[in-house]
Amino acid sequence: MTSQLRQSGGPAQHEYRILRDADLRGYLAELRAVATQLGGPPEDWSVSEVGDGNLNLVFIVRGTKGGIAVKQALPYVRLVGESWPLPLSRSHYEYLALVHQAALAPGLVPAVLHHDEALALIAMELLEPHIIMRKGLISGVCYPRFVDHITTFLARTLFLSSDLAVPAAQKKEGIAAFAGNHALCKITEDLIFTEPYFQAAQNRWTSPWLDATAIAFREDFDLHVAISRLKLKFMARPEALIHGDLHTGSIMATEDETKVIDPEFAFYGPMGFDLGAVIGNLIMSYLASAGHEHSAGERRSFEQWVLDAIENLWAEFSRKFVELWRGEAKGDAYPKTLFAGQAGAARLEAERQAYMDRLFRDTVEFSAAKIIRRILGLAHNIDFEWIEDPRLRATCEARSLRLARAMMLQTREFRTIGAVTIAARALRDWQPDFGG
Amino acid sequence: MTSQLRQSGGPAQHEYRILRDADLRGYLAELRAVATQLGGPPEDWSVSEVGDGNLNLVFIVRGTKGGIAVKQALPYVRLVGESWPLPLSRSHYEYLALVHQAALAPGLVPAVLHHDEALALIAMELLEPHIIMRKGLISGVCYPRFVDHITTFLARTLFLSSDLAVPAAQKKEGIAAFAGNHALCKITEDLIFTEPYFQAAQNRWTSPWLDATAIAFREDFDLHVAISRLKLKFMARPEALIHGDLHTGSIMATEDETKVIDPEFAFYGPMGFDLGAVIGNLIMSYLASAGHEHSAGERRSFEQWVLDAIENLWAEFSRKFVELWRGEAKGDAYPKTLFAGQAGAARLEAERQAYMDRLFRDTVEFSAAKIIRRILGLAHNIDFEWIEDPRLRATCEARSLRLARAMMLQTREFRTIGAVTIAARALRDWQPDFGG
Repeated sequence: MTSQLRQSGGPAQHEYRILRDADLRGYLAELRAVATQLGGPPEDWSVSEVGDGNLNLVFIVRGTKGGIAVKQALPYVRLVGESWPLPLSRSHYEYLALVHQAALAPGLVPAVLHHDEALALIAMELLEPHIIMRKGLISGVCYPRFVDHITTFLARTLFLSSDLAVPAAQKKEGIAAFAGNHALCKITEDLIFTEPYFQAAQNRWTSPWLDATAIAFREDFDLHVAISRLKLKFMARPEALIHGDLHTGSIMATEDETKVIDPEFAFYGPMGFDLGAVIGNLIMSYLASAGHEHSAGERRSFEQWVLDAIENLWAEFSRKFVELWRGEAKGDAYPKTLFAGQAGAARLEAERQAYMDRLFRDTVEFSAAKIIRRILGLAHNIDFEWIEDPRLRATCEARSLRLARAMMLQTREFRTIGAVTIAARALRDWQPDFGG
Repeated sequence: MTSQLRQSGGPAQHEYRILRDADLRGYLAELRAVATQLGGPPEDWSVSEVGDGNLNLVFIVRGTKGGIAVKQALPYVRLVGESWPLPLSRSHYEYLALVHQAALAPGLVPAVLHHDEALALIAMELLEPHIIMRKGLISGVCYPRFVDHITTFLARTLFLSSDLAVPAAQKKEGIAAFAGNHALCKITEDLIFTEPYFQAAQNRWTSPWLDATAIAFREDFDLHVAISRLKLKFMARPEALIHGDLHTGSIMATEDETKVIDPEFAFYGPMGFDLGAVIGNLIMSYLASAGHEHSAGERRSFEQWVLDAIENLWAEFSRKFVELWRGEAKGDAYPKTLFAGQAGAARLEAERQAYMDRLFRDTVEFSAAKIIRRILGLAHNIDFEWIEDPRLRATCEARSLRLARAMMLQTREFRTIGAVTIAARALRDWQPDFGG
């Protein structure tokens, strides 16, 4: 097997080691396809480490002809260090997910050029001139094609890996194939669904302004019940192959293109978690916007775009998902034989709407959970962090928390996506009472 | 490995073959523990095939000292023949489930003496003088210890394999370990959740009396939506390791003992499916009882026992499940840190009740699904089949279908188990209008 791999241009199997400059160069030089794509002698390739995420090393390698991105997992959480070990196998799951997503939603994830399971390494298409969408949003950039692209990604990856599209046996195989990725799931279970709601050592918030709110959230048992129900959904509802970390930092975009990256948290989970990640992060982008103004109202058209994007996102996702259901329902759920004839078709169509309504409620709740963890938990986002004035930052965060709490506890009052954007708009200029 | 197994008293690894008399005798003689338990020379052992289930061979082997039961899977559905192949791996899953259940609910499943994966064979404790509970119920036997035993089995196997008791990583491993049992799941998906609701070739019902009802069920799209939602739950809600086929034919009982057998359909699924299997079959036992009377009212005290058993079953199950939750919540769901102090404990206790209410609704719906499939689908049960007068049989079945339809469509009107037994009692003497 190893010699076959070598013949076909792959390197010998290696033991895991962290690849650095010369070593990485030598390793890549052995990969015929990669070396060809880069062009020129390996000594001339430029290698720079650019990873700004929490977990991994990311290199950009450029040759005379072109560039690639190389992502290598570390055996620990980069943000924290060796005291927080994390299995290398996440690279295998990221690779599996990238391959699945590429097949289900062509053109919307980076193309994989090479995967080395032992080294926990993936070489992939270099995305240029794409930038991390979160950074674009902070600068006030609108992405006119984003809603179309992300709803295609969401509708296709979620629908086409669900029981609506896939026979039960194959679905169960998929669940089993990702079951080993539990260490990454556990991060989510802890950081999103547990720690923000008690006095966990690693929680952070904009103090002192949000002290009272942080305490209130830690003492609000209605909220604790709601988040616990959501946590259980996250753990035990394998509805589809989800990305698992689909915030705006996992999206690279230009005006024309959108690419979803970093699916190392992928597993079979509830669809609403991915939808909530996108929508929750857009809500934060909207409510953080006031913190990035230099003069009042200067970002009004950007903010309107974000609200429109949120509304269109659900509408378009829902339309595309249902359209797939009408045309590509090859799974074992809702068998066509039970909905024969015109009356049957009409009843199934009504049930599709009811299904989307249930998914929307999940989405609202998961959106809220994603917002709360970014303000009261360990991992914050730069939408808020880059607001320099801490009181202003706390104000934007307090608005977001107020909305998120309502979305979590009064979910049934948010029957439509319009109700969400109306509530967000109503909080845009709300002034929290920080006491003192 | 093979020689080690031989040394430790096990036989060499075999290719699969159907074991018959002399071959089986020779095979068992090689198993030291089994041979010792049987006693005497193998030539003197008696071997009889007693399987009356739909899928497998079951032998009772007796020696001078004692007896054992040997179950061997066939590579096809016994009831139908070689035209309906079925993987031998189900024996592996049955073995896994028996071992798990024995650990979680000691004394309530037969002890496994030997498992041979290649031969798809399990040798186990012979249950004497236990009989299949369904047969006892048909004769009007009451089982005074049954409710206590089955609720211990249900509460312990379901709770202790759920996210309430088991860390998420271990739960995911469990799900993956049973994911390969999809062929058995598919039987349930087809026979319970699909075929009774359309004109499937293998459906049977008591004709002509139930013709109109069978047609009505095939044209009732509200029912088709309800059963499709249930099917999706069955496929994609791995709440706990469920038995998967827990009707009264999978229970062997005496007045003092209860043993749950035949868990070859085991996988991680919704808890309500097992609960619904027991309750649905008790409802059928109750409504079939009139068909087994020789004189009006002679089985009244048996029938009262069945209704009491149904009520006590939910009450006791619920009490034991919640008690386990209070004391053995070592899972990742509903983390204790989020419900600290007296107020937190009170809120969690209220949520436990809400959880049980949701589980009860599932149970009501799955009970109904189990009833409908036994009357309009392929596999019927002897509770009804042994009623000789077909019109009387159809009458009992029509009462059951009427109740089941209400339980499926007006689930929220059945808020308590008392509502179920009251509805059943109200139908005990209802005379369906068979027209003509």
